[in-house]
Amino acid sequence: MTTTRIVEVRVGVLKKNDELARALRRRFEEAGVFVVNLVSSPGTGKTAFLERTLSTLVVSGTRVAALVGDLETDNDAQRLARSGAPARQINTHGRCHLEAEMIGAFLDEWDLNELDYLFIENVGNLVCPASYDLGEALRVALLSVTEGEDKPLKYPTMFNSADVAMITKIDLAEACEFDRDAAYAAIDSVRPGMSILEVSAKRGAGMDEWLVLLRERRESWQRVVAGAGRSPRMAP
Amino acid sequence: MTTTRIVEVRVGVLKKNDELARALRRRFEEAGVFVVNLVSSPGTGKTAFLERTLSTLVVSGTRVAALVGDLETDNDAQRLARSGAPARQINTHGRCHLEAEMIGAFLDEWDLNELDYLFIENVGNLVCPASYDLGEALRVALLSVTEGEDKPLKYPTMFNSADVAMITKIDLAEACEFDRDAAYAAIDSVRPGMSILEVSAKRGAGMDEWLVLLRERRESWQRVVAGAGRSPRMAP
Repeated sequence: MTTTRIVEVRVGVLKKNDELARALRRRFEEAGVFVVNLVSSPGTGKTAFLERTLSTLVVSGTRVAALVGDLETDNDAQRLARSGAPARQINTHGRCHLEAEMIGAFLDEWDLNELDYLFIENVGNLVCPASYDLGEALRVALLSVTEGEDKPLKYPTMFNSADVAMITKIDLAEACEFDRDAAYAAIDSVRPGMSILEVSAKRGAGMDEWLVLLRERRESWQRVVAGAGRSPRMAP
Repeated sequence: MTTTRIVEVRVGVLKKNDELARALRRRFEEAGVFVVNLVSSPGTGKTAFLERTLSTLVVSGTRVAALVGDLETDNDAQRLARSGAPARQINTHGRCHLEAEMIGAFLDEWDLNELDYLFIENVGNLVCPASYDLGEALRVALLSVTEGEDKPLKYPTMFNSADVAMITKIDLAEACEFDRDAAYAAIDSVRPGMSILEVSAKRGAGMDEWLVLLRERRESWQRVVAGAGRSPRMAP
């Protein structure tokens, strides 16, 4: 078994995923559903953040749904369903990331034309999900104040392949002696100019700014899709 | 590219790794060096925990060294070297775990006969490092109080392939509303009877218990190696 062979196989898998993701992206554009892919370490608070996002959007009459990936358990889909939004669990049974094929297989029960937003919560992993396009219009990389400010430097691909960086659990910033300047500098050095938001899903801080950004990104995406038939993430 | 092909390649890589890990394990046993592999999510506090462990052991005259894996940067090797112990950084450049081959390549500068303990800090990832034996005598899976008590249920392989579970950052337990019973139940359900310790590398709580466990495990390993020519991890 040579290294070259392994690399070839990996490239093949990624190429197939890219093709499936392109087809998914066209499908999402035609249906007018804005798809958000949330990526982070395990334990950054993706589920709490998404549950609060879904609850707020449901109350405002926005049509939302969520897919959530984990190796095992349907704990997260159960938590997300408390928001009132439809939520489905994808169990990867050992795989460390979601792939476009899995997303496609789990959409069958939903009419995408009836949705404004679809959120995908990826498997908690700061490495592998970065390489797998899921056809999303927006990729958000979450980083909690408890994790260490240099994570973007150590895991650059996850942050430089994302559109927005979300610093979570800011209610714990003081207890963790979080160094805000160091975290911003680390993010900016791997993806200069990237939008950075701060939230506490527990306390609600920063959620308004997030929902404004989300709406603006969707409107901008709608204009691009209507005008040129392609999504912002596909632009050169 | 079929799924079967991918699985075959993965099995081939793991088989090669297992062979190299067996050779490493023999080498460690012959040199009398007790090797500990630390695995966890990014941001669980492996480096802070290891830095404190190394500092304490160095002060007591114990002969220790450390290897630390990250995709990029040598931040962690620099932090660990502050302990006074020799520390080397392994950059995986995109790979999401350490492999036995990498460990072997980074041991050349050291005389293993001069070491009592070698610590390996794996890449922060709760999935892939579980599948890669590094020839260690003890595998410790860390889980911080900030991450969510159900992580062992969602990432069972990481916990059921480890020998000890270490709950970190317990100084933040109250601020995070950490549910100790739920965390213990989750660990126990994927690996019944597993030793569980709690530490705060920042405050020092639990470090004494950890160092006692470490010494006892090393003594037990020495007896097994001396008696039967094999390590506890290789026992059926």
